Amino acid sequence: MSELTSVSQAEALIAEHMPPFGSELVPLDEAVGRILRQAVRAEHDHPPFDRVMMDGIATRWSQGMPRRLAVAGAQMAGMPRQSLPSGDACLEVTTGAMLPAGCDCVIPIEQLRRDGGDYLLSDECQPQAGQFIHRQATDCAQGSLLLSPGMRLGPAEMALLAANGVAKVEVAVMPSIAIVSTGDELVNVDAPLGEGQIRRSNDTAVRAMLRLEGFARVAMEHIVDDEAATRERIAELLDRHDVLLLSGGVSMGQRDYVPAALAAQGVRKVFHRIAQKPGKPMWFGIGPRGQAVFALPGNPVSALVCATRYARPALLAAQGIPVSAPEHVVLDSEVDINPTLVSFVPARVQTDASGRSMAYPVPSRTSGDFSSLPRTHGFIELPSGQGKAPAGTVATFYRW
Amino acid sequence: MSELTSVSQAEALIAEHMPPFGSELVPLDEAVGRILRQAVRAEHDHPPFDRVMMDGIATRWSQGMPRRLAVAGAQMAGMPRQSLPSGDACLEVTTGAMLPAGCDCVIPIEQLRRDGGDYLLSDECQPQAGQFIHRQATDCAQGSLLLSPGMRLGPAEMALLAANGVAKVEVAVMPSIAIVSTGDELVNVDAPLGEGQIRRSNDTAVRAMLRLEGFARVAMEHIVDDEAATRERIAELLDRHDVLLLSGGVSMGQRDYVPAALAAQGVRKVFHRIAQKPGKPMWFGIGPRGQAVFALPGNPVSALVCATRYARPALLAAQGIPVSAPEHVVLDSEVDINPTLVSFVPARVQTDASGRSMAYPVPSRTSGDFSSLPRTHGFIELPSGQGKAPAGTVATFYRW
Repeated sequence: MSELTSVSQAEALIAEHMPPFGSELVPLDEAVGRILRQAVRAEHDHPPFDRVMMDGIATRWSQGMPRRLAVAGAQMAGMPRQSLPSGDACLEVTTGAMLPAGCDCVIPIEQLRRDGGDYLLSDECQPQAGQFIHRQATDCAQGSLLLSPGMRLGPAEMALLAANGVAKVEVAVMPSIAIVSTGDELVNVDAPLGEGQIRRSNDTAVRAMLRLEGFARVAMEHIVDDEAATRERIAELLDRHDVLLLSGGVSMGQRDYVPAALAAQGVRKVFHRIAQKPGKPMWFGIGPRGQAVFALPGNPVSALVCATRYARPALLAAQGIPVSAPEHVVLDSEVDINPTLVSFVPARVQTDASGRSMAYPVPSRTSGDFSSLPRTHGFIELPSGQGKAPAGTVATFYRW
Repeated sequence: MSELTSVSQAEALIAEHMPPFGSELVPLDEAVGRILRQAVRAEHDHPPFDRVMMDGIATRWSQGMPRRLAVAGAQMAGMPRQSLPSGDACLEVTTGAMLPAGCDCVIPIEQLRRDGGDYLLSDECQPQAGQFIHRQATDCAQGSLLLSPGMRLGPAEMALLAANGVAKVEVAVMPSIAIVSTGDELVNVDAPLGEGQIRRSNDTAVRAMLRLEGFARVAMEHIVDDEAATRERIAELLDRHDVLLLSGGVSMGQRDYVPAALAAQGVRKVFHRIAQKPGKPMWFGIGPRGQAVFALPGNPVSALVCATRYARPALLAAQGIPVSAPEHVVLDSEVDINPTLVSFVPARVQTDASGRSMAYPVPSRTSGDFSSLPRTHGFIELPSGQGKAPAGTVATFYRW
């Protein structure tokens, strides 16, 4: 048996070998959820002009200013800048309009009364110089750095791209990923289930995880237990995809033709077996074109844990997302730990009334027991040690 | 001016008026991220049989059992159940195979040495009865409740659907949503920007939010400031969509033709103006077919806050997601609060080394200042009060 790789070594080895996926220019409306690969600067000042913040009138403020103002015109949102004539005058304005030249005070419609061609300030109206004006460049000046490479394009980022005229945006290329299951005992969701058979589910779970993370190019393939077929399909898959996620792993079993098929295509093992539970059999290798091959263990909990802990973060990092600080949680109850292996324990997480992020462990007896996973949000990572991690222990947490 | 509605009243009024969206049957691979609307029970026991957990041999255990076992056949994964013949015999087995009849012990290949037609147990091999056997139904028994209506279909839920033969799954219907912006001052992301104009961005931001939440049917429409055009387009939109999100809100402005157009189509106001900052001008109404109409305020921060705080949760609840406990965070630094309005303050959130969920406020001077939003994860909600909320205050948090 090969030496066990530590969790942190495994992370580092994957990071070292993952190929970058490059970048591409996409229309803005296809960029949602993608990873930005360019810097974005302010196209113009924000606001681009002194901007009226209320519907009402704009005028010039002075100490003891008149309470009756003649309407000299209108400055609607979207209009080029108008000018206030001299005298006791005002311009009607709408929210979002340019502040007319010569004005420094906006009075809301609620504080006004119309009287023929004039507006009268209501009794309670005590205008201040500068009120209800959003001054040019007070949010940011033209050329300010707004977005940096590596950001995921969520609602706020999309707002800034749209507001700054970025109609096409440089984002990370989405890798083409194949999730490959093997084994004659595995049948499709809609097939009759024979004696000794179970349904494939790891591929569906891992694809769901990747899709929810924004990876749209994810294929699922099943390879039957046949040496020639395995060799041929693995060659094709390595040719067509950037990343292979083998569900079922590579094993010492007599009928596991995957290791030989990978080797025949020049896929080089980087590590096999990690000092962790579940998920010890995890294997990682690199193909001749830099294709990343993750062989996830076949048990359902192990497969999801390894996809969450290794494959997904590696795919995100290869798209340019910076490594983020881990999430910390407090154990609500004690948890068994392993004397020599890192333990991954499924848990539900919720903040309590004091703002602590509490983890409620939902341990599964074996890595084949997955019926309780829907009650969890992810898993706690606990270092090896003697006995139990007591309630109150702070641990890192990884969300599914 | 109309009375202000409280934040909790607004939530309750929306919940009371939102129409349910019904359910539909979709193929499993289109169900990722959707909201389950059926109960799912175990199709069969899990595991469905006593299952071999290691590659190696299966045999019958006894005190002082023989160290040499004759290979009497093989039980591969996927095969119908074989039987162990009597005598000092074993069957070769692979991970995932049925435990052969007559066996109660699996010995891993690593603890064996092949010698002709026999296997020899290595010196360190001390087999235990029952070892490396995943017993039938120990995860769950046939008919156990695995998934309940209202769950979002993430990786674990998808695994259980696949493993239990649910090839078509009943999920909430996705509403057809139109995000409608109005105003001649707003130009498209790729249009030349004239004096007094700005680019549309709220629609792009809100669509991004809804898409990332799994809402795929989201259209964007822009209506110019023209009374007849507004009336005609609003009628069409109410006809074609279940939900309208008006970006720019409904105002008292002279050129706002939206309120009249909505009224002409029988859309009834439920409330207008909420006691909150930003986002006070928020309006909500219901059309004659039960169409939900959210008029989000036009300032970028207000629009995102109101979409996050009201529209998105209402859409999720109408799909059947149960209301979840709010997230609690601890303020890292003091924050200004408002004497009469609930304050929504953008913030970054991160758990600290003790597992507390810390909020780092990134207040914006006005609700028009949105350039700092990409540095935040959502916003804190703080009740009205005097002065400031001190560092250490626990507050509820809403993620973008």
